[in-house]
Order: sequence, then structure tokens, then C-alpha cells
Amino acid sequence: MIIVMKPKTEQQDIEKIKRKMESLGCEVHETVGENRHILGLVGDTSKIDPSQIKANRNVEKLMYVQEPYKKANRLFHPENSVISVRDRSIGGQKLAIIAGPCSVESEEQIISISEQIKESGAGFLRGGAFKPRTSPYSFQGLREGGLELLKRAREKTGLPIVTELMSADLIEKFVEDVDVIQIGARNMQNFDLLKEVGKTDKPILLKRGMSATIEELLMAAEYIMSEGNENVILCERGVRTFEQYTRNTLDLSAIPVIKKLSHLPVVVDPSHAAGLWWLVEPLAKAAIAVGADGLMIEVHNDPANAKCDGQQSITPERFKTLMNSLKQIANIENRTL
Amino acid sequence: MIIVMKPKTEQQDIEKIKRKMESLGCEVHETVGENRHILGLVGDTSKIDPSQIKANRNVEKLMYVQEPYKKANRLFHPENSVISVRDRSIGGQKLAIIAGPCSVESEEQIISISEQIKESGAGFLRGGAFKPRTSPYSFQGLREGGLELLKRAREKTGLPIVTELMSADLIEKFVEDVDVIQIGARNMQNFDLLKEVGKTDKPILLKRGMSATIEELLMAAEYIMSEGNENVILCERGVRTFEQYTRNTLDLSAIPVIKKLSHLPVVVDPSHAAGLWWLVEPLAKAAIAVGADGLMIEVHNDPANAKCDGQQSITPERFKTLMNSLKQIANIENRTL
Amino acid sequence: MIIVMKPKTEQQDIEKIKRKMESLGCEVHETVGENRHILGLVGDTSKIDPSQIKANRNVEKLMYVQEPYKKANRLFHPENSVISVRDRSIGGQKLAIIAGPCSVESEEQIISISEQIKESGAGFLRGGAFKPRTSPYSFQGLREGGLELLKRAREKTGLPIVTELMSADLIEKFVEDVDVIQIGARNMQNFDLLKEVGKTDKPILLKRGMSATIEELLMAAEYIMSEGNENVILCERGVRTFEQYTRNTLDLSAIPVIKKLSHLPVVVDPSHAAGLWWLVEPLAKAAIAVGADGLMIEVHNDPANAKCDGQQSITPERFKTLMNSLKQIANIENRTL
Amino acid sequence: MIIVMKPKTEQQDIEKIKRKMESLGCEVHETVGENRHILGLVGDTSKIDPSQIKANRNVEKLMYVQEPYKKANRLFHPENSVISVRDRSIGGQKLAIIAGPCSVESEEQIISISEQIKESGAGFLRGGAFKPRTSPYSFQGLREGGLELLKRAREKTGLPIVTELMSADLIEKFVEDVDVIQIGARNMQNFDLLKEVGKTDKPILLKRGMSATIEELLMAAEYIMSEGNENVILCERGVRTFEQYTRNTLDLSAIPVIKKLSHLPVVVDPSHAAGLWWLVEPLAKAAIAVGADGLMIEVHNDPANAKCDGQQSITPERFKTLMNSLKQIANIENRTL
Repeated sequence: MIIVMKPKTEQQDIEKIKRKMESLGCEVHETVGENRHILGLVGDTSKIDPSQIKANRNVEKLMYVQEPYKKANRLFHPENSVISVRDRSIGGQKLAIIAGPCSVESEEQIISISEQIKESGAGFLRGGAFKPRTSPYSFQGLREGGLELLKRAREKTGLPIVTELMSADLIEKFVEDVDVIQIGARNMQNFDLLKEVGKTDKPILLKRGMSATIEELLMAAEYIMSEGNENVILCERGVRTFEQYTRNTLDLSAIPVIKKLSHLPVVVDPSHAAGLWWLVEPLAKAAIAVGADGLMIEVHNDPANAKCDGQQSITPERFKTLMNSLKQIANIENRTL
Repeated sequence: MIIVMKPKTEQQDIEKIKRKMESLGCEVHETVGENRHILGLVGDTSKIDPSQIKANRNVEKLMYVQEPYKKANRLFHPENSVISVRDRSIGGQKLAIIAGPCSVESEEQIISISEQIKESGAGFLRGGAFKPRTSPYSFQGLREGGLELLKRAREKTGLPIVTELMSADLIEKFVEDVDVIQIGARNMQNFDLLKEVGKTDKPILLKRGMSATIEELLMAAEYIMSEGNENVILCERGVRTFEQYTRNTLDLSAIPVIKKLSHLPVVVDPSHAAGLWWLVEPLAKAAIAVGADGLMIEVHNDPANAKCDGQQSITPERFKTLMNSLKQIANIENRTL
Repeated sequence: MIIVMKPKTEQQDIEKIKRKMESLGCEVHETVGENRHILGLVGDTSKIDPSQIKANRNVEKLMYVQEPYKKANRLFHPENSVISVRDRSIGGQKLAIIAGPCSVESEEQIISISEQIKESGAGFLRGGAFKPRTSPYSFQGLREGGLELLKRAREKTGLPIVTELMSADLIEKFVEDVDVIQIGARNMQNFDLLKEVGKTDKPILLKRGMSATIEELLMAAEYIMSEGNENVILCERGVRTFEQYTRNTLDLSAIPVIKKLSHLPVVVDPSHAAGLWWLVEPLAKAAIAVGADGLMIEVHNDPANAKCDGQQSITPERFKTLMNSLKQIANIENRTL
Repeated sequence: MIIVMKPKTEQQDIEKIKRKMESLGCEVHETVGENRHILGLVGDTSKIDPSQIKANRNVEKLMYVQEPYKKANRLFHPENSVISVRDRSIGGQKLAIIAGPCSVESEEQIISISEQIKESGAGFLRGGAFKPRTSPYSFQGLREGGLELLKRAREKTGLPIVTELMSADLIEKFVEDVDVIQIGARNMQNFDLLKEVGKTDKPILLKRGMSATIEELLMAAEYIMSEGNENVILCERGVRTFEQYTRNTLDLSAIPVIKKLSHLPVVVDPSHAAGLWWLVEPLAKAAIAVGADGLMIEVHNDPANAKCDGQQSITPERFKTLMNSLKQIANIENRTL
């Protein structure tokens, strides 16, 4: 960590902060600049809370040298993490294709969709049972009933289930019923929930918050990992910007950046990012080309009558076509579908 | 609601969507434009889920005419809501000044600060017991112990307590111990938590999410209100932008906008918005000038050694000075401190 | 255009605005909603200035039905535009690969780079002669001398020149010397400059402004086209967001969106978007996968000593490798390099 | 400047960059951290182009210690700058109130408005003659004719004229006719225009770009000042965010921040920021409370029929009322109107 002191700070105040830093176990190197003194901290600074340094009225600014995350950091874990989910894995050479409807609506719907996506090559079934909706008057999901239907679809197809957990009091049920627990974008910094899923050993699919930086996403992963659960899969799903044509702005640069900073696998959700079904195909292809470890795609047998997000869902037929073009790009990237 | 159909949509597809809308209880008025047909829905559309209309492949876009929130809407509740908190109120002619440390650290600290802010005219004591921190390695608050210390400070000073609830499993304890339950910015769309606090009758201070629109903030309030609890106080605390000098960008225009759209009281938190103690005073004054119903300000007796957010906390002495200048502005606005 | 009147607007005020709209050549259809009257305008509304309607105190909001751009609109020009540049073209089946250094530094530099990129298959040479720099103390380009060196490189290699024009007083020189005139992101709404290049018949490469919406980009193209020059090539180069790891956030969704809304070709500049050389390759591949008509890539023979933007430039060797992987993706997309 | 080297950089590469920095006239202090070497540069680094350092493949990141602007920097010019405009000044104890229509429309209009605002206490007349409009089909201003009308209004009222220059070829005319030359938000980084106005000695009102950081605004001022013209007045007019209710998000925190970093005066334009006339009054009051040196307000005698921006213009009557409430706040801030 580098501390820049304000111009004209008195030497005794500089000594005070130096001694404080030393008491936290750091060596302090001082550089005397033209207008400002600069302190370089040497040693393990990952446990120093930066807000405690910034609080000093003589400190002008602070720069991290080390990243604030440890367990998610590639520096200390150079090889890629591969997360096992039943008989499959995420993060390896085979791409993880997670598909299914925004929300589970009926047994017939979920079974028919899961059979069709399986046939096209999907590896995992997604489907919302508990739905975070902007309006309290919108459909909130079939809840426990939805989980039951997902389990029946898994029985039929063998596809592992990925579904969102919104509340810690259901965690035991999710651990029992579900294969990958999804933490939604709106809960990315619901730290209590992160800690709770960190105490399980289930794979966790952690979606980037709508205005979360890449570093904050990795810190959210660190919350889960610091409780003992290192099975974290990250998911880029678009960030909020001034552009309103698309629901969010998909940040594909985040994929190679995350790959550089962290060893965790990262998948892309083009459906939520775009909010428009006809953008799913080009964005899915771009996501594979940019190096993602997989995709999360909304597929619905009757989008026009879907209970939610029909405008961004593609049909099973279109999903099949998409899988074919993805195969070719995966090939170039030395990945398989 | 207004539906714009895509150019060249066939008449039979237009008829289909018309009949669907009519089946939802709306009258449909059709306007035939140069390139597109336009459908105007007349009737109560607040229960229609817009994503179900957008899902229709022939729909180009959708515009709300009615706001999607009802209980929070000033249109149906023209007079200002005033929320009672013990022997005080928020939203009336008297401004609500909520002050105190970022986190409760010790009995001595919280009692000394609360006595000082009370003397300067603060009406409410804030103090974090459960702290949402970006890093799992940062101080997470004294938790239940912190609540106890807040209660002792209330006993001593009579100041009602405002503190953040992060997890639904503590809700009973909060209802018993606390006067205003705060929902933090990161949990603004933690819909399960919103529903739970909606089932109590406690005043809820709901902070705007870091990238939440004003409409989304009002929809979050609607979640609470639709469960029966209409005691909602909104709080503007800055939004995330490209500007990095300040922690967030305080959106003061949101105050008169919220006042126009809703009857709920709204306060401003300049400390979290700015992230810099020397910005708190000018922003607090601006907030009162723009029409806020109160302020939430971080005050710490020893900011340089605060366990969190010291860089944005002001001292009790500075708080006293601030209150004096606020008094003058309040006066002009026909408000009292 | 759809006009939503405020609740409780008097009938006589509604009549007034109806008559005004009729006087502008529109038919007005009125729909009487629960709380508000809605006016649908039928006819050519592209010449109606929306701010003149919003100025009416009884108007609550306004929604476009027709896009505000005409000449750039695919609705009136369904087939793709292909722009001729010397013996080449942009927007056709062959991808336009524009490569070269951020700034022209010397004859040796520009000739050596242009020969190498040509050998790897680039179709156009880019190189800044006049440089927009954030600081007045940074290198501002070789100016007229830079243009001369670009011309020599063109002589040697036959590659058409793409370079930025910052000021209208050089327009004649640019028309004579240059093959594609670039309008930089910072000048996207320099309307006087847009009009001036609109009076020429040179191909114009128009970069999206750092915080410009897709619609504003198309309106900037419309400025050029409305003066008579329809040879406009659009360029996505990243937008400004809260994320600071990358210089900008590349908005790849913009490519298929622009393709849907407009007939103009669109290329992607991954170098400026990312600001980091190691992101150029994955983003370039993603750009082709998403459907771009070409790329603009910074290539420098000695990035570490480049006079500007060395951190985002790749070497000619790496460019060669990149071209090889692009070829494969282009293939899948039925495009050629 | 502080340079953080990548982990595992070889000593010889570190030596190379050290020698390069020394050759640029800096002393280099090296700190050896746990995983990375850190170089602190001592000496005048304001002329070092940071992109040249970042281009080194062994450099991980860079932190400024000194600000990149010199002439605009309060560190080297501690007292406030006061800019003289005819017999008035901007930046002193008296607030600069600049008012007038978005665009000059007719002699009668501009004279009647200027007489009314003068009577209410405005110190300067604004009015657009050359208008930057998003659409080429919108009214573009009366151009030279507009300047003539502004001069007649000045003759009648004595109010100095503030108006926007969009193109360098009119600079001589503006220097002769106008009292304060405005550079609009869209041209904030039109560096050629900045240099040209920097060669005059006219006061320049420089508006913050829609997505410009505070540092970029100060660097744009530095462009003007580095050419010799130190008469720069800054103007905050809202930045672009995801919030769409208001036209832009007014960043009032920028005022005290600019005051801390720079000695230049700064005014606020609440009209363009909000885009809604009923927000002008509360935001204007907040701007004075936060410490602005003045305001720029759109006033129109017949907003509903204004040729542009009528929705954000207030009437002369409302302006009068506004001035009365501003007087009271100015008073508290020890400023006069």
C-alpha cells in the first residue's frame, strides 16, 4: 500500500502514521517528494482496512499495490479452478452451457424445455423458482413448488439444476435439492447471504452486481471463499450505463480481465445483459470468442406467454441453431461444447 | 400503457394482442400511424407485468402512462406522509437530523457521541451494529452487542435509534430494540428482506441503491408498503458514476423529484455520498436548501481512529458548527431544526 | 409521437396543443385514460422538435414512435451500405482491418509498420497526425508533417489512409491527402465539424462519443448525411462507465443494435476501448463474432517507446497472430479478411 | 508519480525504467515490496506523459502524486481568481447571475427578457446565437444575426453578454462582440478550439463535458491557460448517468471539490442539468448553499413557444421570485447578489 501525505504535513504527524503502520506489522519506506511525503508499506497489507488509513486527516490518498482479495487471486493460485457439479465440471476445457426458462411455470413446461435443450447439447438446466422482481405485483415464482418441478426435470434428463437463492432461511433446502446455487446480481453484496453459502460446499454461481466493479465482484467471491467454500463460478451479466436501448451493457472485457486477476471460472449471461432475444445469439458467440467458460441462456418454449422475461428468451429451436454456431467458435478456442 | 407495434405487423397479430389486453381488463384504443400501429390501454394497468407485453415479438416498445407504484404514489395520496418515531416525527415541518458514528465501537464512544450530538440538536442517533463491508477481512460490527450499547445510549439521551438490518432472521430483535430499521443501499432490492420488514409496523429508512433509478427506489418502497407497512422514509446517498474523486455522486435533484412523485419523506446522507469529511458541511446545507426532510450524518469523536469510514466522519465540534449554519437555511425554507 | 398530458389538464388546454400539432401537419388521435389524456400524432413527425412540445407546461411526457433520424435509418434503406475507399470497400463481405500506430512518429516508423501490417493482411493504414490529448503538455502529433509521412507510406504500400481531423480549417488538405477522414469520439457532437465534412464526399469514420447513446451516434451521422455525404462508417470504441480497470467499457451489443437500426457499416476499436494491449486480441475476436464490419487496431513496432498510447498498442508480430485467429472467426461469419 | 512494477519483473528491467525516468530529470526512490517493486519519482513530473510509462510491459500501474494541471492548480495559486468582465467580476464576493433565453429569437424577445432579468438583479445576459442541437433538423440559432440582437440588448441594459462559440473561424467576431465566450459541454475536449480561445484574453466560460471527470475539466482549463489566457470560469451543468428522469445528474459535490483543487471560479447551470423548469429553483438554491460563485439560468418570456429548451426555462416572473430566495441564502454564505 502506498500512502500519499498532504502537502505541508508536519514531520511529527508523518512519524505518527509511520509508527501506526509499523504497529500493524508493516515496514514503512519514506520518499520525500517535491510537495508531498510518500510512504510505501512493505509486508502483508491484506488485513489492513484502508478506510482506517484514509481517516487520518493528513493522508491525501492511498493506492493499493496488492489486490485486496487473496483466495480469489490468481497470484497465489496460478492454475485455473475447475468446479465439479455432479458428473460435470465448470472451468475446464468443456464449456458450461446453462439453459432454461426465466421461471419454472409448470411441470410440462420445464420438462419439455429441459429435454429440448439437453438434446441440443446444454449441460445444465436453469430455471427460477424464487424470482426477484422489481414490482411486488409481478409473478414471484412458484417457490418450493418450483424446486420440486426442477428436480423432476433433473430426474428425467440428468441435467444438474442451477437456481437462485434469495434468502438464507432456505439454504438447507437448496443444499439438498439444487446442484448450483445462484446468487443474483441484486444480492451480490448481500454479505450475510454470501457468508451463509460460504459455509456450504455447494458450487455457487455469483452474478456481478449491476454497478459492481470487477474488484467488488472478486471481493464478493472472497466473502464466500473466506468461509471455506472455494467452489465459486462468476457470471458477467451486464452493467448499468446511460445506454437505454439494451437492458444493461454487457461488459465482455471483464472476461479476460477476470481470467488474469483470478483463477475462478467465469460464464456470461447474454439474456439479462441485452434484454432482447435477438441479441442473445451474437452476444453468446462473442462471449465464447472472448474466452468465457460458459453461458447462461434463457430458453422458453412460448416466449410470448412466458411469465417473465419473455422478451429476452429464445425458443428451443433457435437455441439449437445457436449451439451449432457456438460449436464452431468453441472449436477455434480449443474448447468443446 | 402505450404499446408501439413493429412496422409491418399483420392486422391479425394486432388483433391478438388487443384481445389479450382486453382479457386483462383494459380497453384498447388503436391509432394507425405512418409506419406503425399504436395501442393505448385504458383502465388499471398497474397489475399488468410489462415484460409479458414486451415478450410479444410484434411489440417494438412500451411506454408507461401510469407509474408502476401505487401506495407510494402522490397522485393517490396528495398530502405529505409524516412518520412517527417515538415522540418525534419525520416528514413534518421539523427536520430530522440523524447523527452518530458509522459503527458502534464501545459504550463510552456511543454514549459520549450521542450526548454531544443531542446537545447540538440532533433528533435521532444512528450507529451501525451489523456492518456491510466490501471486504470480509474488515471489521463487521459489534452485532448484538452493538444493539445493547445503542439501547444504553438511548436510555441516557432519549434519542431514538436508527440502525441497519442486514438479515431477516434478526427482524424480531430489531423490532423490539430499534426505533427505525435501516435497509442499506446494497439491500435495496433484497426483496425478501423488504417483504419481511413490510410485515412489521416499524418505520423503515430505505436507502437508494448505488445504481437504482428513482423509480426503482419507489418500487422498493412499494414492496414494503404492499405488505402493509406504510412507514417508509427514503434516503438519497449518492449514486455510482464515472467520477472517482468522490465516493459516489450525490443526486440532489432526486429530492424535489421524489417529492413530486411520492408523498413519502426523504432524507439525505451526505457522508456516504461524498466519502470525504470536508464535503459533508456544504452538501448538508445544499440538501436542506433543495428541500430534504432531514439528514443522516456520520459523527465520530476520533475519526482518525474510527473502526470504519473515519475519512467521512466529522467531529462533534464540527457537527455543532454545521447545525448552526443549517439552522439558518432551515429558517429560509420554513423548517425548524 | 405520443404525448401524455398531465393529470387534470383542462380540456381547453388539450385542444390548444392539438391544434398546434395539427398546424405542424400532423393528425392527432386522442385517447382518454383513467387519469391522463394521451395524444397520438400521425404523419411525418421527424421535423418536429420534441423540446417544443415538452415546453408545454401541461405535457407530462413524450415518446418517439418514429426514430429521429431518417437518412441513417434502415427502415427507409433496408440494404446495407457499402462505402468505397479507393479500390477497397467497407461494409461488404470483406472485413475492413484498419491498423497502424496511435501517432505517426517518423518516416521509418510509419513505413515499417505499414509494410508489416499489409503483409499480415490489413486493408487500411491508420495513424494520427493531429492528436487530441487530455493534457496540453503531451505530444500533439507531427501535424502537417505527419500527413506527409502517411502519404509516403501509402505510396509504398497502397494502403488507404485513415486519420483524424480535429479542426474544420484543415478540411481541404484532408480531402486532398487522406482517404478516410476520422472524427474522434471527443468531436462526435462538434456539430460544425460534422456539417463541414458533410459537405465533402470523402468517407467519414465517425467514432461514438464516450457517453453517447446509440441514437445520438446515429443523429451525429445524420448531421453528416443531411449535408449530402452519405459515406459514413460508424465506430464503437467503448463508453465511459464506473469500471476503471479498463479505459472504457466496450459496448459490443451496440454492433447488432446499430445493424438493426441503420444500414451504415460499423467497425470496432478494441485498442481505445480496453486501453490495455493484452485485451486487444480477445476483444477483436469478439467484435468479429458479434458482427462488426471491421476493426481499428493500434499497432506499434516499439510500444514501450511509443509517443502515445503504447500501453494499448500491439506489435506487428502479435498483429500477425491476431489476424490468423480472426480469419477463422471471419470464416464462421461468412466474411473474409 | 509512483510506478508499481509487475510481480517477478527482472532487476535489469527495473534498472532500465529507473534510468529512463532519471533521464527525464527525476530522482527515483525504489521500495522493494513482498511481490512487487515500487518506484517513487521525485522532481517535476508534470511534463512526463503517463502513457509513455504505462506502455512499458513491466509496469503494472501508475499513481499520480502531483496533479497533472499546473496553472489551474490551487497549490501554486492559493488565493481565489476573480475574473473581470467589463465593470463586473466573477469569483468575488458578489455572485454572478447569468440569465437569459436558450436562444435569441427576436429583438423584442431578447430586449424584453434582458430588461426583466436586469430588474430582478441578474448581472449578465446569456443567449444562444449559434446552437449545438442533437438533430440537424432542429433550429440552429440566428447565428450572426443573433449576436447583433445580443449587442442591442447590451446597449439597452448594460448587461455583459455570455454566448457560445462553436467554431474557431468565428473567434475574431466573438472577441469583438461578446463579453464572455462560452465553450459548451460537447466541445469541452475540442482541444483546437480551447487553444484558440486560449490565445485571446477574453473571459472563457468552460462547461463540464457530459461525462468529464473533474480532473478532465481542469485539464481543459489548463489547455486554455497554457496558451496564455487565465480568465477561465468553470461551469458544472450535470453529468450523464443511468438516471433518466432528469436530463443529467447535477453534481453539486463538484463545487467544493473544484474550489479545493483550483483557484478558478465555478458557476452552476441548473437548467441544463435538470432539463425541467420546476427543478431550477431548488437546485439554484442548493448551488448557492454549496458554495458556487454564480448561476446560469434559462429565462424565457414564453417558454411554451420557445424555439428551444422551453421545458427547462423559467419565466421572468418566476426568476424574480427565485432571486428573492437566493438573496437569503447568499446572505448566509456571506455573498451578495
